[in-house]
Amino acid sequence: MKKFVNDPKSFVPEMLEGIALANPDTLKYVPAYNLIMRAGAPDQNKVSIVQGSGSGHEPAHVMVVGKGMLDAACPGDVFAAPPMDYVYETAKLLASPKGVLLLVNNYTGDRMAFDMGKEMADADGIRCEILTVNDDVAVQDSLYTVGRRGVAGNFFVIKAVGAASEQGADLDELLRIGRKVNDVTRTMGVALTACTPPAKGSPLFELGADEMEFGVGIHGEPGRERRPLASADQIVDDLLDAVVPDLPYASGDRVALMINGLGGTPISELYILYRRAHQRLAAQGITVGRSYVGEYCTSLDMAGASLTLVRLDDEIEGLLTAPAEAAVRVF
Amino acid sequence: MKKFVNDPKSFVPEMLEGIALANPDTLKYVPAYNLIMRAGAPDQNKVSIVQGSGSGHEPAHVMVVGKGMLDAACPGDVFAAPPMDYVYETAKLLASPKGVLLLVNNYTGDRMAFDMGKEMADADGIRCEILTVNDDVAVQDSLYTVGRRGVAGNFFVIKAVGAASEQGADLDELLRIGRKVNDVTRTMGVALTACTPPAKGSPLFELGADEMEFGVGIHGEPGRERRPLASADQIVDDLLDAVVPDLPYASGDRVALMINGLGGTPISELYILYRRAHQRLAAQGITVGRSYVGEYCTSLDMAGASLTLVRLDDEIEGLLTAPAEAAVRVF
Repeated sequence: MKKFVNDPKSFVPEMLEGIALANPDTLKYVPAYNLIMRAGAPDQNKVSIVQGSGSGHEPAHVMVVGKGMLDAACPGDVFAAPPMDYVYETAKLLASPKGVLLLVNNYTGDRMAFDMGKEMADADGIRCEILTVNDDVAVQDSLYTVGRRGVAGNFFVIKAVGAASEQGADLDELLRIGRKVNDVTRTMGVALTACTPPAKGSPLFELGADEMEFGVGIHGEPGRERRPLASADQIVDDLLDAVVPDLPYASGDRVALMINGLGGTPISELYILYRRAHQRLAAQGITVGRSYVGEYCTSLDMAGASLTLVRLDDEIEGLLTAPAEAAVRVF
Repeated sequence: MKKFVNDPKSFVPEMLEGIALANPDTLKYVPAYNLIMRAGAPDQNKVSIVQGSGSGHEPAHVMVVGKGMLDAACPGDVFAAPPMDYVYETAKLLASPKGVLLLVNNYTGDRMAFDMGKEMADADGIRCEILTVNDDVAVQDSLYTVGRRGVAGNFFVIKAVGAASEQGADLDELLRIGRKVNDVTRTMGVALTACTPPAKGSPLFELGADEMEFGVGIHGEPGRERRPLASADQIVDDLLDAVVPDLPYASGDRVALMINGLGGTPISELYILYRRAHQRLAAQGITVGRSYVGEYCTSLDMAGASLTLVRLDDEIEGLLTAPAEAAVRVF
């Protein structure tokens, strides 16, 4: 296994400790619950925003905790949902009179942990609401979901509700905004290689030298089909042919375009994908108003990328451009 | 070859076109000279700062063009110096009454191109000065250098002279600052896998399943030795044992610590390395005042990382924390 790792069992806690050491003024690590939260006590004048998920998708979500983004991230082990009691303890630590918004990508394990964690917090009188993200158009149901999966488009939901919460929005308003952004966001990805979870020590699935997984999930789960490798331009065209008609995005729309690396693909290649996507959207009369190129939601060391579109309006664009701080790029 | 690529010959121009399309308000692409420069005419009230090098090291340097950073980046093809006439044309396009600072990492091919490009610009009455970066402690001379190589520490030189030039520093002052930063910066890297140049289509060198290249260069060139794979902590200890005594950094020093990914290593693993480095420096009485974790100078899709230390003083820290803008994170 060609990784920088000590004991695979300590992969997540050591990463979290590193994040906190690198950001001592802004972040705090709570080892008992695998928690990264903003330094200092939670702001009692705003809704606390928490995202949970398995680890292995960094920078999502532990590296996007900060002003204008998340108040805390509550990760499980690699590709595993956080335990329900961690969700409950997180809700208690982040409790605010204005409530707690729990963001969850749509995977059965994560939803179960968050549903039960929320019930436990509710019983303590902490008002929590759950907002589910499901932007992946690749498959309807999948290995780990009923309904569509939540993937890189999640970033836009975090950015929008994070900005609105700083501006004083209440929990109902944040639910409205988060659902609105999720409703206009669509993603699809492709894997060129499998990823290697540290505890497994070998690739999670087999992919031939001339094959790619079209519509792959961020845990390496199958997508639409195994296909022969194609050129960068052809891959972008095929991704857009799946994503654009799904909402649909149409001539006259203004969109945010994200090319997200899955962990093992260099940023040079992401810009080659970006170029084609920008040009092809322009040819369809769709204007790219904001661009995001880099790693936002990865699958460990998988070589691959995903393409996300968000249909912009003044409200969404205002929230996406509001100030924000995090351990990684969030503009 | 598991890459997002069309014709390998168009790898660099297509990437540059993508960068410009994604940053239409701030960047301009000049295809004739492979040039990324700030949008608008060069500011005639400041020294223009230009970095050249081979491509394949992104985000270095084409993605760190922007206010407070570079005025332009002039890349060659993958792992190839830019042609001397591109350097010359770049100096002409960036000409300012205050002069042009040409930053070059210490590789024989790059130095030759920049020396000749500078001579041609000098003959036109454009004052150019060259500042060479050579932060890599791995080897004294190497496959492509006389003297030490310039690697990820280059980022700190760019950030410092970029900030100073915005504040009105003249060319002599920028040379002083750049040399000062280079003089207190040391780096060493390790490769877990080889990289695959698009035009070659196969790995640049062979590395066994249980081997790593200790002290690797950013073009895959040999380092100090081929070693058996070790734990993340052991690798950090060995890197620090090479880097710390070299300046030397000593108890009481305040430093910037960079863990730089080489292209194929996920950021989760970089934070595992960061954790150990921060802790071990603290145990030696060396305080990490600023931290940088992510990709700054890569080697295409190579799995691996480098560790850089910069000894801080008030002047350097002030320049590193000054405002800056770029297509990627620069804080």
